[in-house]
Amino acid sequence: MFYTDNKLQYPVRVEKPNPLFARALQQAIGGVEGEIRVAMQYMFQAWGARGDNKFRDLLLNTAAEELGHIEMLATAVALNLENAPLSMQEDVSSDSIGGAVLNGMNLRHILSTGLAALPENANGVPFNASHVYASGNIAADMSANVTAESSGRVLAVRLYNMTDDPGMKEMLSYLIARDTMHQNQWLAAIEELGGNEEVFPIPNSFPQDQEAREYSYVYMGFQADGSEPAPGRWSEGLSIDGNDSFSTRPMDPLGEEPALGRARPNSGAQAEQM
Amino acid sequence: MFYTDNKLQYPVRVEKPNPLFARALQQAIGGVEGEIRVAMQYMFQAWGARGDNKFRDLLLNTAAEELGHIEMLATAVALNLENAPLSMQEDVSSDSIGGAVLNGMNLRHILSTGLAALPENANGVPFNASHVYASGNIAADMSANVTAESSGRVLAVRLYNMTDDPGMKEMLSYLIARDTMHQNQWLAAIEELGGNEEVFPIPNSFPQDQEAREYSYVYMGFQADGSEPAPGRWSEGLSIDGNDSFSTRPMDPLGEEPALGRARPNSGAQAEQM
Amino acid sequence: MFYTDNKLQYPVRVEKPNPLFARALQQAIGGVEGEIRVAMQYMFQAWGARGDNKFRDLLLNTAAEELGHIEMLATAVALNLENAPLSMQEDVSSDSIGGAVLNGMNLRHILSTGLAALPENANGVPFNASHVYASGNIAADMSANVTAESSGRVLAVRLYNMTDDPGMKEMLSYLIARDTMHQNQWLAAIEELGGNEEVFPIPNSFPQDQEAREYSYVYMGFQADGSEPAPGRWSEGLSIDGNDSFSTRPMDPLGEEPALGRARPNSGAQAEQM
Amino acid sequence: MFYTDNKLQYPVRVEKPNPLFARALQQAIGGVEGEIRVAMQYMFQAWGARGDNKFRDLLLNTAAEELGHIEMLATAVALNLENAPLSMQEDVSSDSIGGAVLNGMNLRHILSTGLAALPENANGVPFNASHVYASGNIAADMSANVTAESSGRVLAVRLYNMTDDPGMKEMLSYLIARDTMHQNQWLAAIEELGGNEEVFPIPNSFPQDQEAREYSYVYMGFQADGSEPAPGRWSEGLSIDGNDSFSTRPMDPLGEEPALGRARPNSGAQAEQM
Amino acid sequence: MFYTDNKLQYPVRVEKPNPLFARALQQAIGGVEGEIRVAMQYMFQAWGARGDNKFRDLLLNTAAEELGHIEMLATAVALNLENAPLSMQEDVSSDSIGGAVLNGMNLRHILSTGLAALPENANGVPFNASHVYASGNIAADMSANVTAESSGRVLAVRLYNMTDDPGMKEMLSYLIARDTMHQNQWLAAIEELGGNEEVFPIPNSFPQDQEAREYSYVYMGFQADGSEPAPGRWSEGLSIDGNDSFSTRPMDPLGEEPALGRARPNSGAQAEQM
Amino acid sequence: MFYTDNKLQYPVRVEKPNPLFARALQQAIGGVEGEIRVAMQYMFQAWGARGDNKFRDLLLNTAAEELGHIEMLATAVALNLENAPLSMQEDVSSDSIGGAVLNGMNLRHILSTGLAALPENANGVPFNASHVYASGNIAADMSANVTAESSGRVLAVRLYNMTDDPGMKEMLSYLIARDTMHQNQWLAAIEELGGNEEVFPIPNSFPQDQEAREYSYVYMGFQADGSEPAPGRWSEGLSIDGNDSFSTRPMDPLGEEPALGRARPNSGAQAEQM
Repeated sequence: MFYTDNKLQYPVRVEKPNPLFARALQQAIGGVEGEIRVAMQYMFQAWGARGDNKFRDLLLNTAAEELGHIEMLATAVALNLENAPLSMQEDVSSDSIGGAVLNGMNLRHILSTGLAALPENANGVPFNASHVYASGNIAADMSANVTAESSGRVLAVRLYNMTDDPGMKEMLSYLIARDTMHQNQWLAAIEELGGNEEVFPIPNSFPQDQEAREYSYVYMGFQADGSEPAPGRWSEGLSIDGNDSFSTRPMDPLGEEPALGRARPNSGAQAEQM
Repeated sequence: MFYTDNKLQYPVRVEKPNPLFARALQQAIGGVEGEIRVAMQYMFQAWGARGDNKFRDLLLNTAAEELGHIEMLATAVALNLENAPLSMQEDVSSDSIGGAVLNGMNLRHILSTGLAALPENANGVPFNASHVYASGNIAADMSANVTAESSGRVLAVRLYNMTDDPGMKEMLSYLIARDTMHQNQWLAAIEELGGNEEVFPIPNSFPQDQEAREYSYVYMGFQADGSEPAPGRWSEGLSIDGNDSFSTRPMDPLGEEPALGRARPNSGAQAEQM
Repeated sequence: MFYTDNKLQYPVRVEKPNPLFARALQQAIGGVEGEIRVAMQYMFQAWGARGDNKFRDLLLNTAAEELGHIEMLATAVALNLENAPLSMQEDVSSDSIGGAVLNGMNLRHILSTGLAALPENANGVPFNASHVYASGNIAADMSANVTAESSGRVLAVRLYNMTDDPGMKEMLSYLIARDTMHQNQWLAAIEELGGNEEVFPIPNSFPQDQEAREYSYVYMGFQADGSEPAPGRWSEGLSIDGNDSFSTRPMDPLGEEPALGRARPNSGAQAEQM
Repeated sequence: MFYTDNKLQYPVRVEKPNPLFARALQQAIGGVEGEIRVAMQYMFQAWGARGDNKFRDLLLNTAAEELGHIEMLATAVALNLENAPLSMQEDVSSDSIGGAVLNGMNLRHILSTGLAALPENANGVPFNASHVYASGNIAADMSANVTAESSGRVLAVRLYNMTDDPGMKEMLSYLIARDTMHQNQWLAAIEELGGNEEVFPIPNSFPQDQEAREYSYVYMGFQADGSEPAPGRWSEGLSIDGNDSFSTRPMDPLGEEPALGRARPNSGAQAEQM
Repeated sequence: MFYTDNKLQYPVRVEKPNPLFARALQQAIGGVEGEIRVAMQYMFQAWGARGDNKFRDLLLNTAAEELGHIEMLATAVALNLENAPLSMQEDVSSDSIGGAVLNGMNLRHILSTGLAALPENANGVPFNASHVYASGNIAADMSANVTAESSGRVLAVRLYNMTDDPGMKEMLSYLIARDTMHQNQWLAAIEELGGNEEVFPIPNSFPQDQEAREYSYVYMGFQADGSEPAPGRWSEGLSIDGNDSFSTRPMDPLGEEPALGRARPNSGAQAEQM
Repeated sequence: MFYTDNKLQYPVRVEKPNPLFARALQQAIGGVEGEIRVAMQYMFQAWGARGDNKFRDLLLNTAAEELGHIEMLATAVALNLENAPLSMQEDVSSDSIGGAVLNGMNLRHILSTGLAALPENANGVPFNASHVYASGNIAADMSANVTAESSGRVLAVRLYNMTDDPGMKEMLSYLIARDTMHQNQWLAAIEELGGNEEVFPIPNSFPQDQEAREYSYVYMGFQADGSEPAPGRWSEGLSIDGNDSFSTRPMDPLGEEPALGRARPNSGAQAEQM
């Protein structure tokens, strides 16, 4: 169950509203690297978590935090839209360069919301919940969360670098800090699960003797001339899960050219295919 | 540039075709955990890779492998659709239980492809390329790849457990093995980049003194009653990036209730809002 | 800012798990009539609300409630998936009717979540945030909310009628009751704004003498034979907004056949079009 | 069955073509507030209408009108694209401000249609038919239609305010007038069904003694500090459906923390979860 | 401008309602091979048609026909849903095989429409208007229409073969006949434009001496072993557009391995990439 | 199985980077007329091809070529983003016209990829695999491929006309040439299948005496006034498939107004509908 107090988790202040930056901020709301995604991801992971309850707790608690981040960013979008032009006429008069402001705007900020945020990304593409990864495997979920917070912090850093508004920089410095924590937090959860050697390969419950083990630690080459691809940590030495040693070899096809045979009557194919 | 030889990377054999399993296999083709996604993800990461070229090499090489996995799975879908019913009449006659086979089918396997695979998931939702994560940050990309291969192996294991067809189990044991390698491979790439302490927080190029550092390693509580959420590795001890120590505290709002003010004339609001 | 306490708003109990009903319940989570939609809709309306703050308050408060409804339904899905078959073998053995259970399942409940809920609808289509209506016009928003709660209660009633599980009926009787309240609540907000005569036509801030007033209260006929369409309250009497009287008339085209002229060179058209 | 005469329902005239306004107009074609949506919505509602046939009639008749509105807007888009730049060179030469026109364009207006309309919104997102609400409940449908016409008129007003082209203003004044009528028309349909007290709660066919009646008219508070949210018409007095009185109270969780138990073997979870 | 008369273009009769066939029919409504797509495609092509007006006429006239096909199919879906089970209880009692009918249904036919059609495909995926091809090039449009009617007739044939209901077979025999006509009609339009030699390559307005002409009629081989791919009409003889002769040759890369260089500071990359 | 050699199929060179053109090029990568679509389409057609294996061969070989085209275009996007502004500050300083460059950019080129390509179109809409047409009917597939290459060449020509960068013009002249070949190639495949008279109507395996033959070659009129629509090759003379002669006639409804009857109890309708 969830509660609210109508206040902002951290102050949101805009000194010089910028409708283009409002568009950019949308990526942090409704983009695949954004806050709607992590809020929903942590909730659905929590609601499907089986096993030790502490992970459910951790996930729901962080989900509540992320809901507040969406709120901060939505407020930031609205504040950046203060005094944005509503018409061609205003646009021209507000700037000696005709059309410059409207050109760069998400027009739905005018047409659909009357100068407020939308649950969509910087290109106006609505958030799609297929990006909510909740696998029922706690380690795969933690890995997905490290990824989400990594791309999230990359995005926040780029937004920080894009703006020179002190208020926006301050808000983003908070969100960047929280992403630092969250990256560490999900990595810590992997450590709590035993670290890379216990956790991988995910899922660790599948008996490795049932996989085609001779292909499990080989860096295969798919170079057209049969040469070996560039070596690295992935081509020699102990595997990261500690279960074997890496090796390398070029790959040849182990199967034949498949043949599906003739089409069946009544299957809608051309007569020649039957 | 890419080449083909029309052959299968690994043998694909179906002893007892099962149209329901054909539907399930679609998840490994066009699902978010599937092979189209990783093939495209590794390609786009490669094409945007800056810095040391060996990562570009590694990515493209593995992308070529994944293209062959899509091919194997698409072939497996077609083979599982052999003799699937094309009509209500066939359905009834093939089984004493009316409708059972058609009920469980992806009807587009009949209606749209004439018994062949589609680039969509097990529920018939087409693959959407927003799932291709290619961030321009090599570490974020590697993390995304660990995640993709983790959810990919979880899926392959579930498919392996779902079927009792020996041919399908054999094919899946190969794909599971390759996912084992790929999880290790991308983890190895993170190690090649210096391991967790060098790599995190991602991006490591942002000066941490510009983030709101006092919030960077705190596990904040958002419990309605102000209590602390469940402790764990994430609430005390050295942070995983090695830059600080974790601490815990309940969070109170640092901002106020925001006020956007009155709506502007000509903004399409109700008169009462202006 | 948001908080949680990890508890369910209302008890969720399943006596006889039913994976098909788990699929049906997904519509109330990720369908267009579902709870993710209203939770997000009320939040974004709140964050864009201008004018009297009480509406912002009302919206955020109800958003917090809806978050708890998603949680209840996600839990109900997981409980309905208890003991669902994970394989063809289990499916056959659990029921004398081969394939019956797996046939009706959302296969991603096995393959993608390991028996837990997803943010998608009963057909497996992910929630898409374009369904979040937040217009910046408080009356249009309230009308959208009446609509959302109307389709939401219709859905909840259909789910109630579909199941005979006492625990599920109990949970749904609560959700139906809340939809009753929410329909009334948003209608009350329209009354608070002055009722139909003050509120309509939305937006009420546009001067009606600037619209083509002679067409503002006419029920026009588009019948191929020029006849009048069926009369009703909409074809005569005082308009609902109280501003005029309804009338009826068949419509003839007021414009001509448009002509775009020839295609321009270099526009990619065929030579014949230029 | 449908017919056409190739003529425009109302004259469409553009004095000064403006490619940016062409982009804006797309919202009224393929946006969620646009004309494709209402045309399809009224058709599908009609085709699923059960009970008194006059609603089917009303819906189909209005659907035919809306098809003509799409046509008007598509023509308006094409006319606004007259002489739009097709290249960087033209763009520079047509305006002393480099790039200004192309910057603001929907590039698909050049690349995909050769200067004509698309079935997508102002951000280039294609229309998605999940926005077609046709519930099988005539009252829910009428409410959805009031909503659609409300957001539609808000949009048309914003477009009217955005442009200073007399031809465009004239066309929009007609569309605004028709939205006035359509809001009134669907409200009139609700009145024909008996007005708010007969119609609500939707569906009115569900016996209210089967809902958890004690929660049906309570304005519940979800404030973190247990305080009451802002009062209003929704917190006291007779309910709008006339069936009870509103009351208010803070909400405490009625359920417990849910526990899903351990993961099953073969479910793809980590070993620790089993 | 469009008109209606509320009647069906062709009789729609269902002798034995079948909810599974209702699901299948959805593909012909909202699938990529379906009628919403062609109706919208012909409209948008018409509204963007430049040059000789007869194509605009032809397109709009056929669009009107297709609107009537959607209507027929939507009616057929509703009739096939007559007496479909609304609940687990009804499902069990209607058939000795538990769950069989509900298992195969589009559950939204119950939950979202109350036994009527939806604008989505056989898998429940909503129609997406990105499938509306209207290029501004009349020949490309005609080619797209041949394709649409080809996949449309393949689909209608598969539906015809799937059912044994005489009423449905009769309706489909009409739709198949119309697809026959429409394939011929759009092919005739290509002939009217001069036939393959005049029309191709599309667009025929681009001077072929500006393309890299030495690659314009070569069947290139991308076989890993450098061998030639299977020969055919495409590898020798006069080209179909009559402008040159086909030849064959294996392809070697003409470009080098690209290098994007180091990442820029402030671009959110890892430090190692800069 | 697929292979790579990391090299570009054709040189990609950008003399004067242009971030707006980078956005435009995205249409050729992830647009419906783009290269991801054809690459995937040819692969899925190949993997579902039944009958003579030479078509499978042809399709896979061309798919491999198209993969290399995506690679070329992705490289071209990255090169066009060289020195694009990363911030408001850089934007202002790089150009005397404030905001001009950022205004026209796909902001995800900064925020999501750090100056590299995305699998989305020129408006930022991600590629959706529902555009992959693979019907199981070899002739329908070849027709779809002619269409794809036609819209592809139209797009490439428009991009060629849009830019004045010599490097980009050179790359596009190659892609245009290949589209010329591919249009011819798929037309040649239709000829190999026997040409229009053998191939059409697609599917040619359906006995035409089972279609409602009297409507198979009639150009029907749907004009509101009953007049005949504009005549052409489609209204008289031998049909293109050679099976009959075209004729023309106005269409009257052959069916009645449908009636679905009353709604069932428990179906969620209003009481008045039952």
